[in-house]
Amino acid sequence: MINIKESEELSVLNHSCAHLMAQAVKHLYPDAKFWVGPVIEEGFYYDIDLGDKTLTNEDLEKISKEMKRLVKDGKRIIRREISKEEALEMFKDDPYKVDLINEMSDDEVISCYTQGDFTDLCRGPHVLSVKELKYFKLLKFSGSYYKGDSKNKALQRIYGVCFKTTEDLDAHLKELEEARERDHRKIGKDLGIFMTNDLVGKGLPMYLPNGYIIWEELENYIKDKEKKLGYKHVLTPPLGNVSLYKTSGHWDHYQENMFPKMEVDGEEFVLRPMNCPHHMMIYANEMHSYRDLPIRIGEIARDCRFEASGALKGIERVRTFCQNDAHLFVSKEQIGSEIKSVVDLIMDVYRELNIKNFHFELSLRDPADKVKYYPDDEMWENAEETLRNVLKEYNIDYVEKIGEAAFYGPKVDVQVKPAIGPEYTLSTCQLDFCLPMKFDLTYVDSEGKKQTPVVIHRAILGSLDRFIAYILEEYKGALPLWLSPVQINIIPVNNEYHLDYAEKIYDLLKKENIRVSLDERNEKLSYKMRESVIKKVPYTLILGGNEIDSKTISYRKYKSEETVNMSTIEFINKIKEEIKNKSFE
Amino acid sequence: MINIKESEELSVLNHSCAHLMAQAVKHLYPDAKFWVGPVIEEGFYYDIDLGDKTLTNEDLEKISKEMKRLVKDGKRIIRREISKEEALEMFKDDPYKVDLINEMSDDEVISCYTQGDFTDLCRGPHVLSVKELKYFKLLKFSGSYYKGDSKNKALQRIYGVCFKTTEDLDAHLKELEEARERDHRKIGKDLGIFMTNDLVGKGLPMYLPNGYIIWEELENYIKDKEKKLGYKHVLTPPLGNVSLYKTSGHWDHYQENMFPKMEVDGEEFVLRPMNCPHHMMIYANEMHSYRDLPIRIGEIARDCRFEASGALKGIERVRTFCQNDAHLFVSKEQIGSEIKSVVDLIMDVYRELNIKNFHFELSLRDPADKVKYYPDDEMWENAEETLRNVLKEYNIDYVEKIGEAAFYGPKVDVQVKPAIGPEYTLSTCQLDFCLPMKFDLTYVDSEGKKQTPVVIHRAILGSLDRFIAYILEEYKGALPLWLSPVQINIIPVNNEYHLDYAEKIYDLLKKENIRVSLDERNEKLSYKMRESVIKKVPYTLILGGNEIDSKTISYRKYKSEETVNMSTIEFINKIKEEIKNKSFE
Repeated sequence: MINIKESEELSVLNHSCAHLMAQAVKHLYPDAKFWVGPVIEEGFYYDIDLGDKTLTNEDLEKISKEMKRLVKDGKRIIRREISKEEALEMFKDDPYKVDLINEMSDDEVISCYTQGDFTDLCRGPHVLSVKELKYFKLLKFSGSYYKGDSKNKALQRIYGVCFKTTEDLDAHLKELEEARERDHRKIGKDLGIFMTNDLVGKGLPMYLPNGYIIWEELENYIKDKEKKLGYKHVLTPPLGNVSLYKTSGHWDHYQENMFPKMEVDGEEFVLRPMNCPHHMMIYANEMHSYRDLPIRIGEIARDCRFEASGALKGIERVRTFCQNDAHLFVSKEQIGSEIKSVVDLIMDVYRELNIKNFHFELSLRDPADKVKYYPDDEMWENAEETLRNVLKEYNIDYVEKIGEAAFYGPKVDVQVKPAIGPEYTLSTCQLDFCLPMKFDLTYVDSEGKKQTPVVIHRAILGSLDRFIAYILEEYKGALPLWLSPVQINIIPVNNEYHLDYAEKIYDLLKKENIRVSLDERNEKLSYKMRESVIKKVPYTLILGGNEIDSKTISYRKYKSEETVNMSTIEFINKIKEEIKNKSFE
Repeated sequence: MINIKESEELSVLNHSCAHLMAQAVKHLYPDAKFWVGPVIEEGFYYDIDLGDKTLTNEDLEKISKEMKRLVKDGKRIIRREISKEEALEMFKDDPYKVDLINEMSDDEVISCYTQGDFTDLCRGPHVLSVKELKYFKLLKFSGSYYKGDSKNKALQRIYGVCFKTTEDLDAHLKELEEARERDHRKIGKDLGIFMTNDLVGKGLPMYLPNGYIIWEELENYIKDKEKKLGYKHVLTPPLGNVSLYKTSGHWDHYQENMFPKMEVDGEEFVLRPMNCPHHMMIYANEMHSYRDLPIRIGEIARDCRFEASGALKGIERVRTFCQNDAHLFVSKEQIGSEIKSVVDLIMDVYRELNIKNFHFELSLRDPADKVKYYPDDEMWENAEETLRNVLKEYNIDYVEKIGEAAFYGPKVDVQVKPAIGPEYTLSTCQLDFCLPMKFDLTYVDSEGKKQTPVVIHRAILGSLDRFIAYILEEYKGALPLWLSPVQINIIPVNNEYHLDYAEKIYDLLKKENIRVSLDERNEKLSYKMRESVIKKVPYTLILGGNEIDSKTISYRKYKSEETVNMSTIEFINKIKEEIKNKSFE
């Protein structure tokens, strides 16, 4: 999706279009007062005081029509520079603008733009004529507040977008529609994956039965992988004593992302933003010898972070989530082999889960910056070289990001490009030389001396919540068989004659631990089949007289028009094989 | 274990013994001042100000010796009633006693007891002579604070217990030792099940790898059972908006058991003490028809409750735990069959998990109390009769507890008697007529009318945390095979000759998903075998030349002295069968 703000040309166009919209609004609602109208990623919006009026879709139509009339009229857009006094006089009827002007410093150049009968305060620049604003679309409206504060006056916000050609606009609108269809919030609601409700709390989604099936499959999938690699899983509580986060440094450096503390019986608790300190304490619970290393502590760990309510989004951006987290405690000599094993796991999982649109990033320190990074040149050079070598060995593309390392060590991130929205870090593998020292972690080396282990923080699926959002959007909700909440939906052609057989097949599949549903409602076959498609069930069985006579089943795959007939046992084997292989076709 | 407080005779004996101990302390430490010396479940203690002195085991020996001397001396114990003034004069050197006296009302009868050279303030009664206090034992000592407040003076607390006969005392001490051995905190530490640490936070235990294996097995076990019964599992966050708990009524009636609220971006959040409201919201998320009922929402749900730090105990009494919870949404007509299905599940699980020492309780309202219970006589009568009939049908013993029902409906509890400590409620099944109304839950009945469903709250394993404590104590840590963190430990007779074969068998077992360890340390066979027993591994394989030659394995079961030889394949099948059957032998 195009980001309007990233193009200077489109920014000017959209900003000008915001003025055009304001002009149209002023024509239709002469009492309208205007607050701000910035360019955003998606185009532009304008916050408008329309008194008691609440906008409707019809209003949007009317405004759009008036904008088109003004475009045809084709007035030039003229810039003028004025003094603060002039500006205050010019906008004296609009308290919002007066407020804006008063916030400007006295020596600032104040400019305004006029098109026909409409003048608006603006830094500009703008296009030369409203004629250039022909290819726009008003997208939606919502409520907002003066200065974003719910205690202030309620305003109406109208969103729009503008392009240079009709082709660009159409393509964009199509993409928007596509994104709406893919939006995990829509899919999540349509398919009963999760729900949110402000009474439960903003940013606290709840997984519905269908969603929890996906969750369980993913949790078991990644835990099994990790178990085979010698990870030990633990279960730790989603909160801790504030002192724990003082020891780790989170309390001093990460508090703005944390929930407020709670006082309980003389102790201070806080919901944890990360579970590293808990895992450090588990390591510290026992003496360790070099023979025990590496120790790999894994957990599907619940964390809680502060997010502003405006930033929340479905299960993608939330206030509590579970990370597919692990901490590997290794000796310096083991860094290379252990990182390689993590990259192996990432590649393995990505191949199995069919994740293709990704690239690696190697975040290094800026050697010139002597403050931002833990001071140990040799350690940094060795560690960075080790990470680089692992990536080179794989012969995969990666980008080196100098100055992007954390204070405590270099890291390897995997950036994926989801179906909608910007790329993000799905997997990460970070070296940490500091936390083990903060928690006094040690092991005894082969010469009987105490050594500090290195910690590798790593996550493969990132947060399960975010990952489920990702795959829902990636597959538009039509998940591969092994992840589908309902794998097979059975429809008897006619309940009167075929329900018994359908029930028999249902029981057979159920016994094989296949997630199967039986649609025994008294509805038409075509209606039931359409619903099976809407619910994106991978296989729909249609069972009628032919199937009963030949003791077979007939199925239709999702998105296929072909009906395939085969013996029941053959079908069960096919399905079990497909589930086992995590097939993605 | 005997509860001293529950026997009047033993209470008097133990209270007298506390005085005897105080007398001995006074002889040894003439400056000692005394705060309180009450009778408790375990016997008695006395809080003593010994200045800067900290007690040692040797001190306890000395005090005990002096007490024995005093018993031999055989002084009578004489009661005297005195005025408040006299009392203040008599104890003027002891500020703690003065404090106690000043807190008494002026018209209270003040009594004191004298034995030889020692007089103590006491309500009594006491035994007639210190001769009767022959069979005592000082158990332990700890620090305490004046009035239990850590800001006050630090005191020394000495614990003891006293019986009427040497046999009673010996039996009790043996039981105490047994209880110490069984204590899940000791087993949990010895076997690496869980850890606690005040830096993490009091009441926030962390499950170590061995503990999480038990957790996972239990979680999967009960979820599988529930799935087969048509339960749908969900995943909801461990916190919610305060309004959610205002709606449910918890905020008004249960707040003292909750963590304090947190303010985040204009919202108030609170860690949830129960997850019922979240499940109500899941039901309310969709329209329901009578055809959809019963709807069974299950979750291994994390809850957080306030517990005073003094009440915390291992994983038994904690501040956060996960309940094996479910809410069943049913029509009135379905109450009977659904309760029966829950009782079926309880009986099934108890049989499989070998839980034998339990009984049912039916908690009913007190019909005379018109305030304490939700006012709907007909509803109560029907519901109570339904529950009673289900229990009668089972022909199991149950106790009716009148006046023990919750405000919102009657319930069936299952009380189990653990290996140590008093009985507690493991499983519960509660009818609730109120919560569905508070959340406006409805379904459409067969006539198209809106009806309110009844909710059944039920838990089978209670909290998984508490349940793990229970089974650890029940089995003294020697868990049945399917729950054992390490199921098989392999020991090569001699690493030099037999390690290869041991590794081969290890790989074979691993491939069968059996949890197996290989002890390849260069230690003596006998030492390794002893350790295998200490770790309570169900099967220890001892592999040497004979086994290699005959391609067999030899095993020793935990607590058996017999070594059994069989073919490897036979052994694998035996083990898999035993795991599958959840065998308890």
